[in-house]
Amino acid sequence: MLRSHTCGELKIEDVNKVVTLSGWVQKVRDKGGLIWIDLRDRYGITQLLLEEGRSDIATIDAARKLGREFVIQAVGKVIEREAKNPNMTTGDIEIDLGSLEILNSSLTPPFTIEDNTDGGEELRMKYRYLDLRRQPLRKNLELRNRLSIETRKYLDSQQFFEIETPYLIKSTPEGARDFVVPSRMNEGQFYALPQSPQTFKQLLMVAGYDRYYQLVRCFRDEDLRADRQPEFTQIDCEMAFVEQDDVLNTFEGLVKYLFSKVKNIEIQELPRIQYSDALVYYGSDKPDLRFGMKFIELNDVAQNKGFKVFDDAELVVGINADGCAGYSRKELDKLTDFVRKPQIGALGLVYAKYNEDGTFKSSVDKFFSQEDLKEWAHKFNAKPGDLMLVLSGEANKVRKQLSELRLEMGNILDLRDPNVFVPLWVVDFPLLEWDEDSHRYHAMHHPFTSPKAEDLALLSTNPGEVRANAYDLVINGVEIGGGSIRIHDRNLQKLMFRHLGFTDEEAQEQFGFLMNAFEYGAPPHGGIALGFDRLVALFGGQDSIRDFIAFPKNNAGRDVMIDTPSVIADSQLEELKLKVVKE
Amino acid sequence: MLRSHTCGELKIEDVNKVVTLSGWVQKVRDKGGLIWIDLRDRYGITQLLLEEGRSDIATIDAARKLGREFVIQAVGKVIEREAKNPNMTTGDIEIDLGSLEILNSSLTPPFTIEDNTDGGEELRMKYRYLDLRRQPLRKNLELRNRLSIETRKYLDSQQFFEIETPYLIKSTPEGARDFVVPSRMNEGQFYALPQSPQTFKQLLMVAGYDRYYQLVRCFRDEDLRADRQPEFTQIDCEMAFVEQDDVLNTFEGLVKYLFSKVKNIEIQELPRIQYSDALVYYGSDKPDLRFGMKFIELNDVAQNKGFKVFDDAELVVGINADGCAGYSRKELDKLTDFVRKPQIGALGLVYAKYNEDGTFKSSVDKFFSQEDLKEWAHKFNAKPGDLMLVLSGEANKVRKQLSELRLEMGNILDLRDPNVFVPLWVVDFPLLEWDEDSHRYHAMHHPFTSPKAEDLALLSTNPGEVRANAYDLVINGVEIGGGSIRIHDRNLQKLMFRHLGFTDEEAQEQFGFLMNAFEYGAPPHGGIALGFDRLVALFGGQDSIRDFIAFPKNNAGRDVMIDTPSVIADSQLEELKLKVVKE
Repeated sequence: MLRSHTCGELKIEDVNKVVTLSGWVQKVRDKGGLIWIDLRDRYGITQLLLEEGRSDIATIDAARKLGREFVIQAVGKVIEREAKNPNMTTGDIEIDLGSLEILNSSLTPPFTIEDNTDGGEELRMKYRYLDLRRQPLRKNLELRNRLSIETRKYLDSQQFFEIETPYLIKSTPEGARDFVVPSRMNEGQFYALPQSPQTFKQLLMVAGYDRYYQLVRCFRDEDLRADRQPEFTQIDCEMAFVEQDDVLNTFEGLVKYLFSKVKNIEIQELPRIQYSDALVYYGSDKPDLRFGMKFIELNDVAQNKGFKVFDDAELVVGINADGCAGYSRKELDKLTDFVRKPQIGALGLVYAKYNEDGTFKSSVDKFFSQEDLKEWAHKFNAKPGDLMLVLSGEANKVRKQLSELRLEMGNILDLRDPNVFVPLWVVDFPLLEWDEDSHRYHAMHHPFTSPKAEDLALLSTNPGEVRANAYDLVINGVEIGGGSIRIHDRNLQKLMFRHLGFTDEEAQEQFGFLMNAFEYGAPPHGGIALGFDRLVALFGGQDSIRDFIAFPKNNAGRDVMIDTPSVIADSQLEELKLKVVKE
Repeated sequence: MLRSHTCGELKIEDVNKVVTLSGWVQKVRDKGGLIWIDLRDRYGITQLLLEEGRSDIATIDAARKLGREFVIQAVGKVIEREAKNPNMTTGDIEIDLGSLEILNSSLTPPFTIEDNTDGGEELRMKYRYLDLRRQPLRKNLELRNRLSIETRKYLDSQQFFEIETPYLIKSTPEGARDFVVPSRMNEGQFYALPQSPQTFKQLLMVAGYDRYYQLVRCFRDEDLRADRQPEFTQIDCEMAFVEQDDVLNTFEGLVKYLFSKVKNIEIQELPRIQYSDALVYYGSDKPDLRFGMKFIELNDVAQNKGFKVFDDAELVVGINADGCAGYSRKELDKLTDFVRKPQIGALGLVYAKYNEDGTFKSSVDKFFSQEDLKEWAHKFNAKPGDLMLVLSGEANKVRKQLSELRLEMGNILDLRDPNVFVPLWVVDFPLLEWDEDSHRYHAMHHPFTSPKAEDLALLSTNPGEVRANAYDLVINGVEIGGGSIRIHDRNLQKLMFRHLGFTDEEAQEQFGFLMNAFEYGAPPHGGIALGFDRLVALFGGQDSIRDFIAFPKNNAGRDVMIDTPSVIADSQLEELKLKVVKE
């Protein structure tokens, strides 16, 4: 090794040892007769000291020529610091530098390698290897490593086997777009990269593997939104001989284990909220439960009072903002502007202040008496000092709008602390959802999800009402993962494909291998997949996944560091029997 | 759970418990009044018992209708067996079956689900989910899971971080053929799937991550030989601030740890053999050291005795086969036939028996006296009863031929026990190898491998003589992995590319990002990659990797179970701006 110790391990007990350190020059401070060098590696920073008149002159000269990010090897004696730094693990000591060797020089980096850098997004992506030197990114990848280790440890303790499934699989038109891979050995034919190992993990259940998991890369050729990546990592799991509660209990265990081991946070039992209730009470299938502000429906007390907007609405619904009765005109206008933003789309916002003196002041005083508003307050369980915020309109739309307002109020009132974690299960999702474009039902989760036995009869009469054995894990308003109990019966699977608009031939062509497998003793089974990138970002207290991935792509799906995708040689295209069609 | 216990856990202590088991029907034996059902799951087999006159009649009827591989749920009481089976973990007990429910029926499988199946290769590949039910395959995948867990445990204990590198990267013409992935969002451009994360792991060293590893899928679009797969898994590692010995010591530690933990075998220090010695003494850069038979060169004692074949040869070289002097004419002819096979290509084989009575009998008695042969025996360190086998010809060729003969003799003499493991390092590989086709030097390992400092001067005068800081891990004659200390200096890397026939522009175009990274403080670094599929197969005592991969492809690169690669929809091609060119 080109070092005897790392830059993060020397302590007061090491005083007088002669050590060799290697690392990057973080900083050189030259104060006349004294020179300090901060030497950095993955493990920490150690201070090197040179003193004119005492230290070797050639070494002093060499030190004065060091630039930022030079790589050096330093030999010296550990000494006790005069001015200790309790914020550094090596803050009790420094190295009385005897000699140094430059292992590699460095150009001046295009941005500073500090916790807060001056580099813009594109520049940092281009020099990702320099950006990754910054401590916040290093901590993110360290956290990712820790989470993957603990995830595997837990699943191993629960008798799960990690089994690798293939990356070169078959393209299926269902769902999102596949990335495809032309096959040279099979002319005109293509593999596809998996959007998930769904069918393989089900086959592993048919094969009797009982409990499978895999931390696995998945691929989706979608138009990228701000925080999507064409390749992403899943904690992918499947279990046999289970019912819904067994899957929930097992992965509730994982969630608790990870928070306990990695964040030192003990999570209580996860609430299990029905999908329909999540919509009614929070207007979202991924409610943020770090705070309350449950929706209160007001139709019975707010309609038929002459306020046409409410009277014409399918739903009048609101939230109570604790202690916000003192909001100024300006603050209320801001909230109105917020709900009127085109991406939210409400026409207006009704408020009613419950003043400290017990009176009410609302934006609809013309239509509602103090007595009426008292009834509202009763419904809201509001107390003097609170502010009631009410929207109205078509039920589904108004719930979505109010959900946005609720989250905004959560932000304003600092109720969404990134260091507080409230995970929950949303259960009983609908099996199907109607797609206006294609005028047919789509599988809400995926076509392998089993309907609830008690709803099966509805499948032919009222398909939209059928509930599935499907569930999502939600933490702090973010969908971390989802899963379902699968269909394990060939005939039911066939029926499902028909309801999804597949002909029997199409179903056989695309998923025949799975339906054939169901003929040979398929056990009841179910599973879940958790978005690992998002889980890590959540644990890291951040919204964006990008800085939790070592080498992410930008919003155009490009890696600007290695400059890919790129054109390939004509000879490669010829071998693949492909031609690029110019527009 | 649809069970209270697995089929592998009930013991004598559980007698009298009422239990629920779920699993597959392995076998039903109906002996008049008694019916036994062997119920199987991943964890084992438990015997269920029914008795006419005592058991429920409906249950007996149901049991008689069960077919092989039906999935059932069984409820009953644990009782002590009359005839215990010490070979089964559950052999002390059976279940007095109260009721059973069929969870799923099964068609008759196309082959038997037994340790030795009657299914042919193609059929078993097509019904892989059934083949995977067989115990030998289950054990293989269990071993794979165990090896991956222990590998991660060891590397974690050595401060390695697992860091995921991208799968959608850039195509480079160097090395084997890439699989490419057309980009829809970047018309006419392609990603490539990685043949290894080589450049990314080097960038992680530049980024200061110090110790990286990843169990990672790699892809190579090669014409498949019997035991190659288009996608395969590597244990990929890199370390900073290391010299060659540091890498060898660290991964020698991994090898010892894995054998100890997984096979309960304590491995001694690994021999480190120079590449040139491996060729001289074993005729191979991956010698099988489970047995001796080191090559002995005979030029000085065997030439100039009038035997023209030897006299004209560049090299006369042989091995000593312990105790084989008694070989019959027929056995010796078989060996001659072996070395004459076209894929080996020797013209003939010379033997000399050292008889028990101290005399010699050779195939070249006409040219060599008893005294001459005694000299041979002295060289070979042969004793009475041994058989000396000698080949001659052009040095490189004859060494390869003798290597094949040595391995064959190892087989014949049962010296290649798959349960004995002898790992070693082969070091000091040549940096470059001459390619007759392209008439230029190629990198023997890869273009990022550093030449030995003391050989640098030879690079311009005698490039073929330059040794690299490159090493292979070899176990039982199989190359399990290899690595090198890398170049970390931009100018040396540039020089290397020139020697490999790249123009500066080509080098910059393809590897510019890496050479740029070297400008910003790249530390000395090196690493290794181990073939995980092969390692698992070796631990499993088998030559072929296919049954250590859950869903392998066949020799044409096809997955016959899911029938891929396959044609994709025209709309997909249109979106990708691609056209398949028909011949």
